[in-house]
Amino acid sequence: MNKNSSNIMALAPNTSNKRETVCIFGTGDFGRALGHKMIQAGYPIVFGSRSTQTSSLIPKDAEVLSHAEAAQKAAIIIIAIQRQHYNFLTPLAEVLHGKVLVDVSNNLKINQYPESNTEYLAHLVPGAKVVKAFNTVSAWALQSGTLDASRQVFVCGDDMEAKQMVMDIVRALGLTPLDKGSLLAAQEIENYPLQLFPMWKFPIILSFCLTAFFFFYCVIRDIIYPHVYENQDFSFFIAISIPNRICPILALILLALVYLPGIFAAILQLYRGTKYHRFPDWLDKWMLCRKQLGLVALAFACLHVLYTLVIPIRYFVRWRISSYIISQVLNNQTQPLDNTNAWISDSYLALGILGFFLFVLLGITSLPSVSNNVNWREFRFVQSKLGYLTLILCTAHTLFYGGKRFLSPSSYRWYLPNAYMLSLIVPCMVLVVKFVLIFPCLDKPLTRIRQGWERNPQHS
Amino acid sequence: MNKNSSNIMALAPNTSNKRETVCIFGTGDFGRALGHKMIQAGYPIVFGSRSTQTSSLIPKDAEVLSHAEAAQKAAIIIIAIQRQHYNFLTPLAEVLHGKVLVDVSNNLKINQYPESNTEYLAHLVPGAKVVKAFNTVSAWALQSGTLDASRQVFVCGDDMEAKQMVMDIVRALGLTPLDKGSLLAAQEIENYPLQLFPMWKFPIILSFCLTAFFFFYCVIRDIIYPHVYENQDFSFFIAISIPNRICPILALILLALVYLPGIFAAILQLYRGTKYHRFPDWLDKWMLCRKQLGLVALAFACLHVLYTLVIPIRYFVRWRISSYIISQVLNNQTQPLDNTNAWISDSYLALGILGFFLFVLLGITSLPSVSNNVNWREFRFVQSKLGYLTLILCTAHTLFYGGKRFLSPSSYRWYLPNAYMLSLIVPCMVLVVKFVLIFPCLDKPLTRIRQGWERNPQHS
Amino acid sequence: MNKNSSNIMALAPNTSNKRETVCIFGTGDFGRALGHKMIQAGYPIVFGSRSTQTSSLIPKDAEVLSHAEAAQKAAIIIIAIQRQHYNFLTPLAEVLHGKVLVDVSNNLKINQYPESNTEYLAHLVPGAKVVKAFNTVSAWALQSGTLDASRQVFVCGDDMEAKQMVMDIVRALGLTPLDKGSLLAAQEIENYPLQLFPMWKFPIILSFCLTAFFFFYCVIRDIIYPHVYENQDFSFFIAISIPNRICPILALILLALVYLPGIFAAILQLYRGTKYHRFPDWLDKWMLCRKQLGLVALAFACLHVLYTLVIPIRYFVRWRISSYIISQVLNNQTQPLDNTNAWISDSYLALGILGFFLFVLLGITSLPSVSNNVNWREFRFVQSKLGYLTLILCTAHTLFYGGKRFLSPSSYRWYLPNAYMLSLIVPCMVLVVKFVLIFPCLDKPLTRIRQGWERNPQHS
Repeated sequence: MNKNSSNIMALAPNTSNKRETVCIFGTGDFGRALGHKMIQAGYPIVFGSRSTQTSSLIPKDAEVLSHAEAAQKAAIIIIAIQRQHYNFLTPLAEVLHGKVLVDVSNNLKINQYPESNTEYLAHLVPGAKVVKAFNTVSAWALQSGTLDASRQVFVCGDDMEAKQMVMDIVRALGLTPLDKGSLLAAQEIENYPLQLFPMWKFPIILSFCLTAFFFFYCVIRDIIYPHVYENQDFSFFIAISIPNRICPILALILLALVYLPGIFAAILQLYRGTKYHRFPDWLDKWMLCRKQLGLVALAFACLHVLYTLVIPIRYFVRWRISSYIISQVLNNQTQPLDNTNAWISDSYLALGILGFFLFVLLGITSLPSVSNNVNWREFRFVQSKLGYLTLILCTAHTLFYGGKRFLSPSSYRWYLPNAYMLSLIVPCMVLVVKFVLIFPCLDKPLTRIRQGWERNPQHS
Repeated sequence: MNKNSSNIMALAPNTSNKRETVCIFGTGDFGRALGHKMIQAGYPIVFGSRSTQTSSLIPKDAEVLSHAEAAQKAAIIIIAIQRQHYNFLTPLAEVLHGKVLVDVSNNLKINQYPESNTEYLAHLVPGAKVVKAFNTVSAWALQSGTLDASRQVFVCGDDMEAKQMVMDIVRALGLTPLDKGSLLAAQEIENYPLQLFPMWKFPIILSFCLTAFFFFYCVIRDIIYPHVYENQDFSFFIAISIPNRICPILALILLALVYLPGIFAAILQLYRGTKYHRFPDWLDKWMLCRKQLGLVALAFACLHVLYTLVIPIRYFVRWRISSYIISQVLNNQTQPLDNTNAWISDSYLALGILGFFLFVLLGITSLPSVSNNVNWREFRFVQSKLGYLTLILCTAHTLFYGGKRFLSPSSYRWYLPNAYMLSLIVPCMVLVVKFVLIFPCLDKPLTRIRQGWERNPQHS
Repeated sequence: MNKNSSNIMALAPNTSNKRETVCIFGTGDFGRALGHKMIQAGYPIVFGSRSTQTSSLIPKDAEVLSHAEAAQKAAIIIIAIQRQHYNFLTPLAEVLHGKVLVDVSNNLKINQYPESNTEYLAHLVPGAKVVKAFNTVSAWALQSGTLDASRQVFVCGDDMEAKQMVMDIVRALGLTPLDKGSLLAAQEIENYPLQLFPMWKFPIILSFCLTAFFFFYCVIRDIIYPHVYENQDFSFFIAISIPNRICPILALILLALVYLPGIFAAILQLYRGTKYHRFPDWLDKWMLCRKQLGLVALAFACLHVLYTLVIPIRYFVRWRISSYIISQVLNNQTQPLDNTNAWISDSYLALGILGFFLFVLLGITSLPSVSNNVNWREFRFVQSKLGYLTLILCTAHTLFYGGKRFLSPSSYRWYLPNAYMLSLIVPCMVLVVKFVLIFPCLDKPLTRIRQGWERNPQHS
């Protein structure tokens, strides 16, 4: 370590109000933004640059020196340069020996290089203590000070002390450092800011396709059919009536799809007689996005609730009710209370309410801060027991909605059954197979397999 | 420390892409699952086992050696063995000297042993650095890779460096380590996975009992009474009408029970003239589960809102309204707008909406991630000021609901008052006593007592 | 370090069940409460006090000694004394040398002293390792054990080891330590418990003023006008009808105000041709409270939804519908279904539902635990793309609500337009300007400016 930097470090604890000088290599956008912010936080800043002419863009209080000179002034050097230019550091190896190098770089694509930028940097300057940090923060956010988004800065590195020094800077800038361990985590940290909801892709695409299918299905049955046969214009059904068919259907199907992979896994384990064989890839992926599938299902369920509660305010519904009453009066006939109808209508609504309530509860427990406060046993109880109860309630809700209509021929327009009937296929399948799996003759071996104690003899 | 392991440790920083070898004692289910996972994360694994025959269940890339041989190959040894067999480690004391021993064990009952497994292990092998970790993760979750639940791994231990090494492994497996301090925390960590919502037991049992009581009460008043005297079959009220009576009643009573212990505490402190006497046990326990009581109350309030909003969609309600209109027409009489009724109906609904809105706000601030971002002063403001406002609004909502019916004799079927009247007892009591406690003659001494500055002379 | 304390520290690791003695200076309320709690957690406690007479208030198991004697018994000394009296520590400098001093003090005002209490303490006793902790916990909460609020204890200090020792105590008391870095963070930590929702002040005051304005506006138009001209008493509109006008208006205006500062910033950057000039102060402050503005808007939107869904249950609405139907019957005329009305009514409701749904989604992503799990790119996608979509949907919802009424003269009572028309001004402005800014001729230079690569020549 050169004398200069060790001097600064020795002084620091005594004059605790003075921050240590930090050096930034690179006067690009991110380097300047970071410099600005650090000067505000009280750090003396030295920029290392090829051309030492001070530009108006560089913060006024910062010095601009050559790379070697700048490096000698500080114990921590932030490398705000793109990976392609890292090799200019090789000749500086001697000056950088023992220094803390902070790699802030990002890539343009996920897994762009076989080796993370930070590990590459560590190989180039083996004598330095390399730390990854700040790559999850945007220059714009630093500059404008409006850090509404995540204030988390992932930090990793092999040298504990260097990591601590960097984490102190992170804290001083009003950000929250998160220690991600050794340099091996750098690849993951570099990939992180490039992701755009990777786990949500499959659920969203799936629900798009299903939505499109059921939309056309309902348009044919509910708009085109009456238009052709009864010459009625119900095109305004597109706004509320048809969405309110699609939403519950999708909510139910997606909720069932959350529990289907678990059923497949159980059957597979029973068939193989061991849990130590890997599942096929599609099943693994499916199981990993169950939470997202469930949340998309919950979103559809919420929309369904809103669309339903709004029914009595709709002009069309008010018109239909009042014209029905008026026709009753004019025909001088009054409908008596049909007790069966009252039972069906009320149970159907009650089941829906309870199902939705449990569904929202499941959604709340999947919030990160809630699920972190819940142990494994509690989580399993909520997600498995309450989850199946939700599925049962929602399926029953749909069955009661069908009520007497299942077999009425008027439900089959152009031989197409009502859309909600299609939505019952997957959940009923899941519930039936799950019910079979609960029988002791299947449940016992499955439990033993999952505890790892039992297997088919041919595997030993 | 033996030469072998120190060698590995010295090499590690230079060849940062290579993970250190980790040794696992025990080839049981959890040991194998952990081994699998760690091999996936790039760790060379050695199993220490009584019988060194490689079983097909053990991951292929892992070596199986005797305990002593395996221990020599690694600096970290994971003890995946049950507590009863720990004593086999005593003869290995020499080999284990200076090693990091990771205790992953769990018990079957809370506080099963007077001393935690980890402390017991530390006593058996005094020369080793013992760290507790991984006990909150299930073998199944590790194996299947579907870690939807908490990814937190509680870590504790007396040796900082050993703890850091274990936390790095935890991070490498995609889990989040949480430092819980010294070995003294081990007991708590071992109890953690055995809990099943311990704080929720009392609120849930209480609300079960109250629900049962009010259910039978309402069945008698609203179904049996009309059946006996008017020969009408309202059995379908069980689906929606009766739940929609029980839910608001329970929400109000439970909400009042959240504030009742605070009232008791204040009276007790005033009476005793000091805050340095402990409260009776039942009061302490009650105060500790106030948050859970409040959340259960909120759940009932949400159900009440859903049940209420669904009213105009119910077949029975539609039938009743239309037959009412028809009877008006046939009798040729029209009801003029009753301004008092309009006022009562609207205020009752408005109070309910505002009360529910504040209630949900209280619920949101009790989310862990929100309450962590709020300081003590802000939390008190929300939970105390807004909480009492919620209670006042909800009580007023119920009073307005009663409206003119309080004294009408038709409300007393079989001398039983309407159920909502019973629900008003506790909240009104709480509000009246709280109102009395606000008077300066009581508030001033109470404030002084709570600041610790004032006390009755007989206590000094 | 004196022999006594070093002895204790040496013993600790071997007898890990025994906690180290902790000394507390000061027998005030907080000192005693902390002492109680630490004795419960198994720490031997020595109080350092001017008068060594044991008071009945001091926990029984604690010793009370003179300051110097007490300090010699422990490695950690908690200074539970007010800042004004810190200077009594100067003569004790020798005894305190090498000890860990924990500053727990709070101030009465934000930034009361130029230097934080902890830094002042560090200057007074330069030989000690000063750590800030426990100031965010209240004595009352410690005493009563009811820590419903945040369990976070902010810790800062320059000496890593001292900080670790204090954090272990924090954990042992069942609290969560949060390392905030070096002593420089002390000022911030001392200000923290004094804040009362500082970021919420502007949004709440603004919405109060707007609410008051629109309340009187609506009272004049909807209650006084019909009272004067039609002699009708609609005073009960105050309970629901008028709040249900104010809420959507405020939700829309506040939501637009979330996006307005971004528009201003973009125009300013385009005009200046650089992003390196600071925004005016008011714009900075506005941008920093956008999240709070949005959440207040969401609260109004939620109230609007509740008020709307409750409409069909209101006595007034039921009366109006039934008297409308009766009048139709009596006049023997039936209204045919008006397709345009059906379209307008349904689209208006559907837009509102979708807008509200996205709004709630935005609200959920602003929960700290959710936004921490989202990277910068995802956060921008949600808050910017989905945010503008929400604004568009909500504005369209209001426009459709207006429907045919915009130009009808009956909407202008006393020349006052309907209140919802006023609410459209800001959102329409924002959307139009945003639309203009999307044009490539403006978007391209703006993007370049924000990447820092482009600027007007006069600034270089």
